[in-house]
This record gives sequence, C-alpha cells and structure tokens, in this order.
Amino acid sequence: MCLILAVTLNPALDLTYTVDEMVQHATNRVHTVLERAGGKGINVARVLHAAGETVVATGLLGGATGARVADLLAADGVRADFVAIGAETRRTVVVVDPADATGLWEPGPTITAGEWDAFRTRYEDLLDGVAVVVLSGSLPPGLPQDAYATLVRIAARRGVTTLLDAGGDALRHGVAAGPDLAKPNVAELRALEPGSDTPAAAAAVLRAGARAVVVSDGPRGLLALTGTGAWRAVPPEVVAGNPTGAGDACAAALARGLRDGTPWPDRLADAVALSAAAVAAPVAGSVDAALYRRLRPAVTVTPFSQGSAC
Amino acid sequence: MCLILAVTLNPALDLTYTVDEMVQHATNRVHTVLERAGGKGINVARVLHAAGETVVATGLLGGATGARVADLLAADGVRADFVAIGAETRRTVVVVDPADATGLWEPGPTITAGEWDAFRTRYEDLLDGVAVVVLSGSLPPGLPQDAYATLVRIAARRGVTTLLDAGGDALRHGVAAGPDLAKPNVAELRALEPGSDTPAAAAAVLRAGARAVVVSDGPRGLLALTGTGAWRAVPPEVVAGNPTGAGDACAAALARGLRDGTPWPDRLADAVALSAAAVAAPVAGSVDAALYRRLRPAVTVTPFSQGSAC
Repeated sequence: MCLILAVTLNPALDLTYTVDEMVQHATNRVHTVLERAGGKGINVARVLHAAGETVVATGLLGGATGARVADLLAADGVRADFVAIGAETRRTVVVVDPADATGLWEPGPTITAGEWDAFRTRYEDLLDGVAVVVLSGSLPPGLPQDAYATLVRIAARRGVTTLLDAGGDALRHGVAAGPDLAKPNVAELRALEPGSDTPAAAAAVLRAGARAVVVSDGPRGLLALTGTGAWRAVPPEVVAGNPTGAGDACAAALARGLRDGTPWPDRLADAVALSAAAVAAPVAGSVDAALYRRLRPAVTVTPFSQGSAC
Repeated sequence: MCLILAVTLNPALDLTYTVDEMVQHATNRVHTVLERAGGKGINVARVLHAAGETVVATGLLGGATGARVADLLAADGVRADFVAIGAETRRTVVVVDPADATGLWEPGPTITAGEWDAFRTRYEDLLDGVAVVVLSGSLPPGLPQDAYATLVRIAARRGVTTLLDAGGDALRHGVAAGPDLAKPNVAELRALEPGSDTPAAAAAVLRAGARAVVVSDGPRGLLALTGTGAWRAVPPEVVAGNPTGAGDACAAALARGLRDGTPWPDRLADAVALSAAAVAAPVAGSVDAALYRRLRPAVTVTPFSQGSAC
C-alpha cells in the first residue's frame, strides 16, 4: 500500500517551439522543438518519480501522438499503464519568442462509452497496492461530467485515498463524491463560488463534500481547510520562472503527505516548497531540487480561524 | 516503364489549425485540427494518384511524426516506400484565423550518412520500371547539397527521365547534373540568377545543365525553354483559392507529359490547367477535377523567340 497512482484522462503531447520573433500572418521558422509528455497528472507522476517515489501514470492515450507521449514518458523512466483510445491524443503548442509565449491548445479526443468502460476496469485493477490516487486536469469530450466522482467512489470502496485537482464541472461533480482532498487553484475556486472570498469559497467546497481543501494561489502560497484545522502556508520568497506545472508539483507533495499521514503543517510546507521549486525549473513536471531543499525549512505555516473565513 | 516515382527527402506532417482569432502572447483554443501528409513530392504523388496515374512516393521518414505521415498517405491510397530515419520527421503548423494564416515551420530532421546511403540503395531498387522521377523540395540537414545531382545521375544511368523542382543550393547543384527538366518558381529562379529577368535567368539554367526549364509564375502561368523551343502558357482566368501546392500540381502534369512524350504546348497547357485546379482545391495535393476539365482547352500557349530572352 505505498504506490501513488496519477490519473490523466486528457493528456497531451506538449510541443515548445522557439522562434526569433513570432510574426502573425507570416511564416515563422522554428529553431528548436522540445517535445514532452504533457497533462497535469503526468506532471504529478514525473515530479514524484524524480523525488524517488513509486508512482504509476494512467489515463487515456490514442493514435500517433498518444504513442509519442508513451515513448516520452518511458524515456523519463516513469511507469505508465494507459488505456488505448481510437482518437488522437491532443497536442499543445507553445511558441516562445524573446517577448513572451503564444499557446495553441488542440481540442481533446472524443472518448467512446466503451473506452470509458475499459478505463474504469483498468483503474480498478491498478488500484491494487495503491495508497493515494491523484485525479488531475480537464475531461476530454465524450466523458461524463461526473467521471471524477465515479473514480473517487471506486477508490473509496477500495479504501484508497483520493486527491482531486480540477476545475469547472469536473471539480463540482467530483467534490460531491467526497474526495479526501480537493486542490483547486484560486481561479478554479472562484469560478465554482462566484462572489465569495477564498476562505468562504474553500469552506463551501468542504460543505459540498470534500474532506479537505487546499487552494493554491501562486506566489501567495496555499490556504488549507480540513475537518480539524485551517492554515495558510507562504513561501519565504517569490521565485521567478515558469509557473506552468507548479500546481502539479503542489499536488505531488500533497499526495505523498496524504500517503504518509504527515501532519498538515508539514505537508503544506512541503507542498509550498515543491511548487516554488517547480517554478524555478524550466519545464512543467520538473523541480529544482536544490531550491526545494533550501526553501523547505523556510516556509511559514500559520493557523487561522475558520470562523473568520465564513 | 510506366511508373512515376515522386521523391520527398524532407516531408512533413502538415497540421492546419482553425481558431476564432489568433491572439499573440495568449493561449488560443484550436477548434479544428486537419492532419495531412506534407511535402512537395508527396503533393505530386497525391495529385498523380487522384488523376489515376501509377505513382510511388519515396523519401525519408522517421519517428512518430514519420509514422503518422505514412499512415495518412496510406489512407489517401498513395503507394509509398520510404526509408526509415532515426530522427523525427518535421511538422508544419498553419494557424488559420478569419483574417489570414500564420505558419510555424519546424526544422527538418538531421540525416546521417548511413541513412543517405540506405536511401540511395532503395532509390536504385525503386527505379525498376520507372519512367520519370520527380525530385521535389528542400533538403533536410545532414544531406550533401548535391544530393539531387547524385539522384539525377543515378536515374540518367538507368535511362530514367528526371524532373527537379527545388530552390537554392539544391537547385543549383542539381541542375549541374543535367536533369531533363528543372521547374523552379520565379522566386527560386531569381534567387539563382539575381539581376536577370525571367527569360534570361531561365536561359542561364539551360546553359548550367538542365535540358529544359519550366518556370512557374503563379497566376501569370508558365515560361518554358527547351533545346528546341520556347513558350508561354497562360491560364484563361485567375482562380481564387489556396496557392500552396499549385507548383506541385504543375510538376505532376509535367511529369506525366514527360512520360508520355506529349508535345510541349499540350504539356504546358495541361500543367497550367492542373495548377489552377489545385489553387481552387482547399488543401495542397488535391485538385478541382471539374475546373481542370473546363480550363484545360482554354489555356493559351504561345511560342516566343529565345533571342528576345537573352
């Protein structure tokens, strides 16, 4: 019972292009192409693998792009067991010029009812020996909006702890099934509870079914509400870099904290430090290990009254 | 001796994305993704196959993108026999918004000396039963600049007719080996002979070794110089549409004219009509067959004095 299972239902082949200058409505020569296995659960798996944890990545992959994602994950040394789908896994293209980055997000593949059935069966099999399941990211077209709720309930029946990191309807429906931890970011939380401030919105997520909520708020750190306490965890400094994947590093740290039963303040400090170390690393799904070790003891975790939150 | 062999040494997986609005330095959601096997020789093969000709596409393909190109060609019904390389075949991404298109061209894969050896061996084998070889497009990194000259000489030793459609150094070196026909476009011709007008530059290509030259000039049609005559061929109307691939349709028509020994005026009329019909078709490598049949008898071909050209 020590494995962590990281689920990515809508993974991507992430392409990063560098150009001298991005000229709209012209032909741009790409100088370098970086290919990565992408998707939030895959980033979680890569961070945990790099930290020496035993993790398995699963989800749905299809076509030539799906095969490429599987090859890239294998090259990273991450254990993977994905269910094959008929459609092509999406790509994301990020074009980096000296000024900034331009993103192009392909739509996800449409999943058939049979493929979703096949995934649930594989998921049940994969839960053997798993302590914590991390459910991350958007749902591709064709999946029911309560897909995460289904996966949370299957895990709960098997006594496996669940961490849900999603937004929108996927988060709303998933929370109703009672995950052990929901980890929205501030934007996802506010979309769920418009008009509420962050503590009030987090409390609403608890009432909606989650047993604990950790809200990530970029360089401002984390807010955590559990059945027994509430904390803020703040990094000792603002780290410059690429924030993509910082939330996934946070989820990775929280997953191992859940597995180990680490006290909440330590668990949150670990998550803040690992997130900041991910910002400092050049690509999503990797962390700056030296920075992590330096920041870890310097994170400030303070309790706050839940009364003041509502 | 009836086959046409279409060579693409630097093919691509062509991706066409449609977006509502292309916003630079932001994330753009892609609505539709169109994947095509790309590259000039592949377009030539697709046009000839659609016209009922027996054609084989060859060249170099590698990695997941190369496998996808092979799958897409097979789905189009085009016979293909490519040599496998270790690196990934490049992609081209074209982002179409309501205003215009933005292109992103990946660099080609680097070809090893062993892969180039393997290609030459396969090419020799494939020449059995071939009447005309079409050599199209850019050379990927790693290939010698005189790669087309080598392929022209091998074909000539076997009595196989050659058509070279390229630019820059690939054209310059290739022409020196004496292809039966060189088909640069006006921009490629002018880059080869700066300061010359089109007829003078075409005459210089003849002197440099080509046995005939056909210069494509978009809606202005074709200029042809051969050892025995010179003609201009002009379409009866300007066709609106996508000019990408029109030059490849022109090369396809010229290749079948070379194979059949069609008199030059008829050959040029066919090439003008097929090019225009390619402009009217939505994607490169396809033609509007009805438009082709309507335009074919209406193309104007007029001789002109080579004396006036130099």
